[in-house]
Amino acid sequence: MSRTSRAKNAFTEPPEELIPRVLWHLGRLPGIGPKSAERMLHFLMDAPSTEVLGLADSLRELKERIHRCRQCCAPTEEAICSLCRDPKRDPSIICVVEHPRDLAVIDRAGRFRGHYHVLYGRISPLDGITPEQLTIDHLIDRIRQGTVKEVILATNPTLEGDGTSLYLSSVLGSFGTKITRLARGLPAGSSLEFANSQMLADALEGRREF
Amino acid sequence: MSRTSRAKNAFTEPPEELIPRVLWHLGRLPGIGPKSAERMLHFLMDAPSTEVLGLADSLRELKERIHRCRQCCAPTEEAICSLCRDPKRDPSIICVVEHPRDLAVIDRAGRFRGHYHVLYGRISPLDGITPEQLTIDHLIDRIRQGTVKEVILATNPTLEGDGTSLYLSSVLGSFGTKITRLARGLPAGSSLEFANSQMLADALEGRREF
Repeated sequence: MSRTSRAKNAFTEPPEELIPRVLWHLGRLPGIGPKSAERMLHFLMDAPSTEVLGLADSLRELKERIHRCRQCCAPTEEAICSLCRDPKRDPSIICVVEHPRDLAVIDRAGRFRGHYHVLYGRISPLDGITPEQLTIDHLIDRIRQGTVKEVILATNPTLEGDGTSLYLSSVLGSFGTKITRLARGLPAGSSLEFANSQMLADALEGRREF
Repeated sequence: MSRTSRAKNAFTEPPEELIPRVLWHLGRLPGIGPKSAERMLHFLMDAPSTEVLGLADSLRELKERIHRCRQCCAPTEEAICSLCRDPKRDPSIICVVEHPRDLAVIDRAGRFRGHYHVLYGRISPLDGITPEQLTIDHLIDRIRQGTVKEVILATNPTLEGDGTSLYLSSVLGSFGTKITRLARGLPAGSSLEFANSQMLADALEGRREF
C-alpha cells in the first residue's frame, strides 16, 4: 500500500500555492485520495490552531528524533529501543520482520517474548531492491556474536517475502543457528469456503497429527 | 463527520510521548481510525524527511496564513478572496453555504457565477450553536448595502440546515431582496427504487409542468 501511495506522484514536486500544496501532501498519505484530502483540509482549516500546530510539530519531531535502534533497527528515540532493553525478553531468539509495522502486529499479539530484527523491505529484483539495501549485514553481525539460538523468519507470505526468507536461510545457515519460519495454513476464524488453493495446499502440506 | 471526529477525544490532551502523540493527532483527522493512523505513522517514518517536513510546514502555514475573506468569509490568503475579486462573477447574487467545503462543491459544478457567503455552521440549539455564532450579522451588512438582488440559501437538506434557512429568510425578508433556496427532489442519476419517502415527497411537491 505504501508503495502505491508513494508512486502516486513520485516524480512531481509539491505545488507552490498553499492550499494545493496542503492537498498534495495529504494526498500522499496511504489510503488518502483527493476527496479525503479535501475533507481533511477543511477539517484542518476549521480546527483550533493549537491542534494543527501540534500535529505539525509532532511530525517534525518524528523525523528529527526517531532513528533506528542500534541493535534491532526498529524505529526508536533512544540508542537502543525499549524492546531490546527489556530484561524480561529473551535475546537468544530473534524474529526477523520486513517492516516496523509487522513488528508492532506481532508484538501486540503478545505471544512472542524474544527480540526482533527489522529488514526495512524484502528482496525484490523487479523493484531493484537487493539484499545490500536491507539490514541483512547487520543481522549477520548480530548472529555472529554467538548468543542467538534461533532465528524466526517472519517475512510476509508473498512471493517476495518467501524469496527473502529463502535467501536469509541460506546466508544464515552457515552459523549453526536454528532457523525457522512462521507456520502457514488456514487463518483462524476463517471458513474453508473462502480458502484459496495456496492456503489449502499449505494447510495440507503442514498438517499435524492429533 | 468533522463533528464526530472532533468529539473523538475532545476533552483529552495529546500524550507526552512522541509516537503516541503522532498517533493521537493523526487519529483526530476525519475518517482516520486507529489502524489508518498507525499505517500513516509507519508511512511517515519511512518517508524522506523533506516530504514529512514539507507536510508539517504546509500545515503550519495553513494556520498562519489562511483567514476569512473580508467580504464572503471564505478561507483565503488575501484580504478579499479570488472569487470575490473575479470581475466575471456577478456580485448581485449571493449563494449562502454552511461550510467552505460546500462552496467548493458548488463552485466545482461550474453552474453558479455569483458570489458566496460562508456561515461556518448551521443553527443548532442542541449543540448550543446560536445565530450569533455564525456570520449572519456580516451577511446582513452585505445585503444592507443594497447591491444584492438575490440570496440563494444553499444550506444542507437536513433538519438543521432547513431551520437555518428558515431563520435567514425571516431575518433577510425585510430588506426587499429576493430570497430563494435550492430545489429539492430526486438526485440525478439515482433510481426511484432507492428514494426515501422524504425525497419522494419533495419530488412530488416540487413537480413542474413539461
